[in-house]
Amino acid sequence: MLITFEGIDGAGKSTQIKKLVSYLADSGREVLTLREPGGTEVAEKIRLILLESRHEISPVGELLLFSASRAELIHEVIKPALAENKIVILDRFFDSTTAYQGYGRGIDLELLRSIIAISTCGITPDITFYLDIKPEEALSRKFSAKSIPLAFDSSELDRMERSGLQFYQNVRQGYLNILKESNGRMFCLNALEKPEEIHRRIIALLHERLQT
Amino acid sequence: MLITFEGIDGAGKSTQIKKLVSYLADSGREVLTLREPGGTEVAEKIRLILLESRHEISPVGELLLFSASRAELIHEVIKPALAENKIVILDRFFDSTTAYQGYGRGIDLELLRSIIAISTCGITPDITFYLDIKPEEALSRKFSAKSIPLAFDSSELDRMERSGLQFYQNVRQGYLNILKESNGRMFCLNALEKPEEIHRRIIALLHERLQT
Repeated sequence: MLITFEGIDGAGKSTQIKKLVSYLADSGREVLTLREPGGTEVAEKIRLILLESRHEISPVGELLLFSASRAELIHEVIKPALAENKIVILDRFFDSTTAYQGYGRGIDLELLRSIIAISTCGITPDITFYLDIKPEEALSRKFSAKSIPLAFDSSELDRMERSGLQFYQNVRQGYLNILKESNGRMFCLNALEKPEEIHRRIIALLHERLQT
Repeated sequence: MLITFEGIDGAGKSTQIKKLVSYLADSGREVLTLREPGGTEVAEKIRLILLESRHEISPVGELLLFSASRAELIHEVIKPALAENKIVILDRFFDSTTAYQGYGRGIDLELLRSIIAISTCGITPDITFYLDIKPEEALSRKFSAKSIPLAFDSSELDRMERSGLQFYQNVRQGYLNILKESNGRMFCLNALEKPEEIHRRIIALLHERLQT
């Protein structure tokens, strides 16, 4: 079973993934948690280029690097794990590509669909939890957690974060569009609710999905 | 004007590029010579992943990394140079992708066409010189140049070179198919002829092309 978490940074994905992993481990299931980009030796090198570079990367270059990292992760880790009946939990998957590179950077959505199909070998999540939050709230939450005042020094941000508020608003709108078109694969959770409450809803949705 | 050189390693591309660059420089033209993968800060990092890794990379991952490197080179270097009326000479371009990843690794050619279109922004060479040589001859030439006996130690080879003779035979057949379908863009030169002779033919073909 493939479970993915989506949402802009600061939405609380990591917290919810931790809670879910510990819930599943308690019920004796073998769980593999992975983050994108990264997860293999090659993919981690690609991650460094994408996230830590100070230089600009073209939108198409960025898309192709994310897709290369994904292709490696699918090929080396996810496919074998699913074949062994493990539960795989992904912190971001192809919906991030559609939201960030498509709606955020303006790359043609049809083109994205074909690159996603190539890089995933057609693998689709069984269920996707989207943690919805306004970018303003997500950013302020993220920086208060780091004890950095809201009037932050932009050099503290990584390359993706420096893209600005409008970018993140487009990304959020992208996620909401994906949600509408997901045919029941993606569930929207209000990221401003208490983490315990969100976790309870995730478990309930997961049990529902397992029964269908 | 965009001029590309193609052919398997050992065909003599570097020698011919040097001769052509010095010819063009003598006639007062500004020339920019680039190699793929690489040519920008990001693209050189990708080059390292592709050529120096000891680990395996999936065919799709390899294709996407090459394409990402190309997208960066096009965006940052080639487009601006062509806009300034420079002559750009490329040591490998998208015909290498079709030959190596398509015919060599067996990735669907239609798929390759769409990824090439994305990564190049539709830029096509004005003329392509393909140096044709049998893989056996190219390998023996390459290793005699390095003073390594033909019964070479395979750890001396980079990741691409370790792919084996059959792979290179498929790549060469791929080049010959591309040549047939190139509508006069690509010219085939016998790599076993004397370098001076090949150079003279290249200059003649270039002048012909400039007049049309």
